[in-house]
Amino acid sequence: MDSLSLLSQIVQPTDLHRLNDKELRQVADELRQAILDRVSKTGGHFSSNLGTVELTVALYSTFTIPPDKVIWDTGHQAYPHKMLTGRLDRFDTLRKHKGLSGFLRREEHELDYFGAGHAGTAISAALGFAMARDLQGTDERVAAITGDASICSGMSWEALNHAGELGTRMTVILNDNRMSIAPNVGALTRYFTDLRSRPQVQDIAHRAKQIMERVGGPMHRVASGLRHGITHYFAPEETGTIFEEIGFEYIGPVDGHNLDDLLTIFRNLRDFRGPLFVHAMTVKGKGYEVAEEDARKWHGVVPFDLDAQDMVKASGPITFTQAFGEAAIEAATQDDKVVAITAAMPDGTGLTAFAKKFPKRYFDTGIAEQHAVTFAAGMAAGGLKPFCAIYSTFLQRGYDQVLHDVCLQKLPVRFFLDRAGLVGDDGPTHHGTFDLSYLTSIPNIVVLAPRDTTELREMTLFAAGFDEGPLAIRYPRGASDDTLPEGRAPMQLGKAEILAEHDEARVTLVGVGSMVPVIWEARATLQEAGIPVNVINARWCKPIDLATLGEFAHQSELMILVEENVRAGGYGQQVRDALSEQYPGLTCEIQVMALPDSFIEHGAQPIIRVEAGLSPEAVVARVEAWVSGRKDRAYRS
Amino acid sequence: MDSLSLLSQIVQPTDLHRLNDKELRQVADELRQAILDRVSKTGGHFSSNLGTVELTVALYSTFTIPPDKVIWDTGHQAYPHKMLTGRLDRFDTLRKHKGLSGFLRREEHELDYFGAGHAGTAISAALGFAMARDLQGTDERVAAITGDASICSGMSWEALNHAGELGTRMTVILNDNRMSIAPNVGALTRYFTDLRSRPQVQDIAHRAKQIMERVGGPMHRVASGLRHGITHYFAPEETGTIFEEIGFEYIGPVDGHNLDDLLTIFRNLRDFRGPLFVHAMTVKGKGYEVAEEDARKWHGVVPFDLDAQDMVKASGPITFTQAFGEAAIEAATQDDKVVAITAAMPDGTGLTAFAKKFPKRYFDTGIAEQHAVTFAAGMAAGGLKPFCAIYSTFLQRGYDQVLHDVCLQKLPVRFFLDRAGLVGDDGPTHHGTFDLSYLTSIPNIVVLAPRDTTELREMTLFAAGFDEGPLAIRYPRGASDDTLPEGRAPMQLGKAEILAEHDEARVTLVGVGSMVPVIWEARATLQEAGIPVNVINARWCKPIDLATLGEFAHQSELMILVEENVRAGGYGQQVRDALSEQYPGLTCEIQVMALPDSFIEHGAQPIIRVEAGLSPEAVVARVEAWVSGRKDRAYRS
Repeated sequence: MDSLSLLSQIVQPTDLHRLNDKELRQVADELRQAILDRVSKTGGHFSSNLGTVELTVALYSTFTIPPDKVIWDTGHQAYPHKMLTGRLDRFDTLRKHKGLSGFLRREEHELDYFGAGHAGTAISAALGFAMARDLQGTDERVAAITGDASICSGMSWEALNHAGELGTRMTVILNDNRMSIAPNVGALTRYFTDLRSRPQVQDIAHRAKQIMERVGGPMHRVASGLRHGITHYFAPEETGTIFEEIGFEYIGPVDGHNLDDLLTIFRNLRDFRGPLFVHAMTVKGKGYEVAEEDARKWHGVVPFDLDAQDMVKASGPITFTQAFGEAAIEAATQDDKVVAITAAMPDGTGLTAFAKKFPKRYFDTGIAEQHAVTFAAGMAAGGLKPFCAIYSTFLQRGYDQVLHDVCLQKLPVRFFLDRAGLVGDDGPTHHGTFDLSYLTSIPNIVVLAPRDTTELREMTLFAAGFDEGPLAIRYPRGASDDTLPEGRAPMQLGKAEILAEHDEARVTLVGVGSMVPVIWEARATLQEAGIPVNVINARWCKPIDLATLGEFAHQSELMILVEENVRAGGYGQQVRDALSEQYPGLTCEIQVMALPDSFIEHGAQPIIRVEAGLSPEAVVARVEAWVSGRKDRAYRS
Repeated sequence: MDSLSLLSQIVQPTDLHRLNDKELRQVADELRQAILDRVSKTGGHFSSNLGTVELTVALYSTFTIPPDKVIWDTGHQAYPHKMLTGRLDRFDTLRKHKGLSGFLRREEHELDYFGAGHAGTAISAALGFAMARDLQGTDERVAAITGDASICSGMSWEALNHAGELGTRMTVILNDNRMSIAPNVGALTRYFTDLRSRPQVQDIAHRAKQIMERVGGPMHRVASGLRHGITHYFAPEETGTIFEEIGFEYIGPVDGHNLDDLLTIFRNLRDFRGPLFVHAMTVKGKGYEVAEEDARKWHGVVPFDLDAQDMVKASGPITFTQAFGEAAIEAATQDDKVVAITAAMPDGTGLTAFAKKFPKRYFDTGIAEQHAVTFAAGMAAGGLKPFCAIYSTFLQRGYDQVLHDVCLQKLPVRFFLDRAGLVGDDGPTHHGTFDLSYLTSIPNIVVLAPRDTTELREMTLFAAGFDEGPLAIRYPRGASDDTLPEGRAPMQLGKAEILAEHDEARVTLVGVGSMVPVIWEARATLQEAGIPVNVINARWCKPIDLATLGEFAHQSELMILVEENVRAGGYGQQVRDALSEQYPGLTCEIQVMALPDSFIEHGAQPIIRVEAGLSPEAVVARVEAWVSGRKDRAYRS
């Protein structure tokens, strides 16, 4: 297809060692072309990968990988890494079921040294590799590549603090594109902007060697009272940077798209033996004009026409994200105590319109879920009604804060957990399949799951009026099914909704949120097969509606509880336990359908839901197996 | 008793407004005396509270509380706060059951604005209060008091970053005593040491007012390219501090025990309207000589003789902490790939001796659980065998990292969770009552709980040899009961230990870890009452030993599962679920005894265990009730 004459010959990073600088420039050009061609066809993370092309080529051609190690933060900007490690020809499978992951995965390739989907882990992991090296007496290089949003996460600072203390040989490369997914926030971002305005490091080539000798490595300048880093040899008029204060040599800013400069810098610093911080300025979407102009739009793409330079994300029925965004505005319009908090995901959580309408009541903490949760707790204690909108998977970062700062103190923070359940293409680091377990085991919180977008709106408005304590609503990625019946039971604390009830039904199906349409569809099939069933929308995962469930359990012979959460600690286990304890003589058989005790790989949502056993067909099969088994048992007894 | 003539008249902070500076000095002296007298009798946090006396008096006499708000980080250094808010006469109940909490609690007092037991939350919460104030149009002052260890936690940096951006009126006071519980670590600590060596701010009194007018507030100097904070008016030869870089005015260092200086500074800065950072140097144990000399020993005290200046912590049977520490050294001696990681708790986790013996293989990350976990994951990926020793409650801070960086990647990090279950005096922020729920719901990890210290040793050595994936051992605070039988079944993956088996037993008791001695004691009582029972030590909370449990469930009529964890997502629910699913026709009644769905208050371990229903008597009562009920049912059927 396209002519990637050099790139197609690179199957491992050390193949780059055979190339001269001109050829490396060609490899970079071909990488960019390959990203444009491939990702425009498959969809995936786009603009961030266009931004890391030269950084990757410079570093991978300078390092000897393996044994040298590069740890990518988050990993969705590591397509160039994947292409330089023998995976170019599999890029048509990107993010597809059983295909290449959109992130790094240790299982996918031995040079994916450390996988990541959540930001801020690279420096910690790299420091771990560095200490493993030191203790085992080997001598490979270790680098972490992190972004200007990731480095603002608290975890990155914890790691920098430790790395600065240990003083070992390790390079942190800041890929500073002034954007995470949305424009970056926080005081440190201003600080980076300030650093970017300094004179660029360009002529380091001629002088670096001799300076390296004079400077030596690892140093503890702060401790010894000295404050002159390498930078000062080049820009002595500048004061020290934060990174120098905590023990790193700071090199920067450097143009992250000037391959010659990058090669020079990495070659000269390759053998530096202390903590090194390289600040590279890059442009998200580099090389594709419209993406450079609107990196936010082009962060993640669906397949699009490269020449047309336009991407139309399919519009369809209203998504849960949109429904929450609209309901949050509705609630905030009615009550000026409502405020909204996001951790770097204004678009993903549906708060963009809220931010425009209520700029003073909208807070983006950056990638800082720990702070976001306790900040919300503080606002609740101060009399406001915080809507804290964090994806199910990212709220894992704030688990302790949810537990202590919110729930122990019974503060009325409202959590909105988008992307609960299986998210699809992003895979296991982004599935929200643990929230029912980690939330419902905490005292004082109430947890809801809506069956569709209309119910999410109702729950959101309910949440606005619920001041008794913490509350969480978890809802899936995507739009809701519209096959459910029209009528709705009013929202009531702790009350499930009965969707179908038949006098002659021996079977009751109970679904949590996204699984309600699934059991509803199963009902239709079972009805055709002459098996009437009761159908219940759980609505409340905590507290469980024990009265309604107990009533149906007594009039049924089989109750199946279906949820898109791991089984351990989920809704089904808790209902089974509560029913068994409450009614020791209960004869109704209870079955739980939940996600298995394993991580679910990436793939389209419908495919992996079916694979995980959460489909109408699977529910039907369960009921039919039980019906035939019951006949057997009836015969035998 | 003692003469606290002024202090005893202070029932609210504003009472301090009536006093002149000389009287305030007397209040400070009386506070120190009161701490010495009271805490030497009750035990509790000692040296950190001696360090905050002057800071508290200066701030509380300058602020108007309420409505002004002071948020204390962690809260165990806030005894002076408690004494100035009407709780002096209740100090004899400190940390006792139903008595004063050792931390701040919103439920305990309206001026405990925000409770905390885990470090690093104060700045986030204070910023929340500040924004709630701004949005509601009130004008009170908000201050956060944090320590030099707490401020190194990532969460504090997330909050500073956000506060610097928002630019609102808020004071962060760094109580810098160069110690957390153990000597503090990390590059930032070196940095603070550097700041401490600067000239002290003393004469700010005369000049501050006019400077405040010139400087104005809130400012975005970094953004506008200016770099001159208030400090520079006093010490222009110094370069800017990290705090100034991210948008704070930095005042410091100040002598945190010079009340006159503190009063002058707080009075002059009281009306400053931007983010303000006050760096106060204090001495842990101030005023009690031996505590000043060995702040680590005197961090937490048992009751002691004030005049003797010595404290003898009772020695007793070996604790789980000690047993782990010894076993870790044993494992590390046998295998040089074993390394140990703690997050600021070398003493608490039992690693002090390990650190001495293997200084290069020992890592203290400071209060940085997120980093500690992923750092351990990186070391595991690099070929080492990390022993990551973090209290059950503190590992909540690294939940997402355990999930993704360790378990998803199936990296063999060994977690050692001390203080699992109810810890006693420290109360709800320190109980380790959620780990079975938050850990066993994660795929790929195995989770164990030892019945006594000998078994902990065996499990630790087992862990050293277990390279298949992540592993966690959770064990309680304190020593183990020695009433258990002598013989031991060898450690085997996934196998429970049968401690007692009777042919005629209709009842099987299964205990997890700390609950094994409890059910063993119940067994003796039941035996006397003519009710023989089987007794099983679960050992493995994940994977569950379904074979053994199934076998006993089939030969029993009642099985009781006992664990010191919340019920939701705990061992009992999962065993019940697994048995029910595996054996749908199972007739054995299963009962779960676990902690209730509420936060458990502080109090001596034995008392609160009984209150929570986890005692031999409660187990006996359950069995006896079942036996009589069974007779009833047998009669009825």
